[in-house]
Amino acid sequence: MKTEIIAEPGKQELFIHREFDAPIELVYKAFSDPNILLKFFAPKGINMHFLLKEYEEGKAYRYRHTDEEGKTLCTFRGVVHEMSAPNRIVITSELEELPILGRAILEIYEFTALKEDRTKLIVQDVCRSVEDRDMMIKSGMEGGIVSIFENLDELLNAGI
Amino acid sequence: MKTEIIAEPGKQELFIHREFDAPIELVYKAFSDPNILLKFFAPKGINMHFLLKEYEEGKAYRYRHTDEEGKTLCTFRGVVHEMSAPNRIVITSELEELPILGRAILEIYEFTALKEDRTKLIVQDVCRSVEDRDMMIKSGMEGGIVSIFENLDELLNAGI
Repeated sequence: MKTEIIAEPGKQELFIHREFDAPIELVYKAFSDPNILLKFFAPKGINMHFLLKEYEEGKAYRYRHTDEEGKTLCTFRGVVHEMSAPNRIVITSELEELPILGRAILEIYEFTALKEDRTKLIVQDVCRSVEDRDMMIKSGMEGGIVSIFENLDELLNAGI
Repeated sequence: MKTEIIAEPGKQELFIHREFDAPIELVYKAFSDPNILLKFFAPKGINMHFLLKEYEEGKAYRYRHTDEEGKTLCTFRGVVHEMSAPNRIVITSELEELPILGRAILEIYEFTALKEDRTKLIVQDVCRSVEDRDMMIKSGMEGGIVSIFENLDELLNAGI
């Protein structure tokens, strides 16, 4: 399945479009259940663990990606504004290793049921500036996202 | 003191600039302590109360504005991404009475100490679309904000 990243020049947002060959309830569950996220939400070869145990509406979350030797690669923290099964997740997200703090993004996951038990996911990332967005793209997010969604394809094929 | 609202055409953000004649620690405290917010964070003649008792980093908040008869005017909910005294507060915010849900904004309060114990506040509101931002402006937010900041001037003059 193709992952499409749409970043219009001069805008402080980007959109990620992806389809999954699974019903909306299952795809939503994968993105909202921390025990499932652990299994796919890191590029291949990278481990993930939660530093806070909750990933729930109205609460803070924090997770870390580590390499095979256990070295920290990046740590993400934020709060969950909304979890509305099976259609929408709204969170803030901030990479703790950035040299400048306070540059949180607003991230919205919207799930739409398609024919034949397929699901369309649109992720919108809204940044504090065009520069923040462009830096996020230049950091190589596309490769990471593509790998994460391929991990999820495998899980969904196996029924999770 | 003048409240300046800067909304560049075609952008999905706006900025509010305001100075206060009080030290940064006191201005930050006013915007981060729910017991003080209650005293000024509603336009004149409108009452405010919190529906959740916390207004803290990593937690959900919810408050309501009511008229003199107790009728609900608007209810705001969100989560606090960051409270870094005395410089920055980062929250999400959503008006529950809007016909379309899921249109949270990212709101950043940045406080800077000026000479002679004065404080500059810059609020950045980042929206999911230009249309969302324009609707927020057309809803009459400017009058509300100006009134709220005047309430705070009075509190600060009285030493809160």
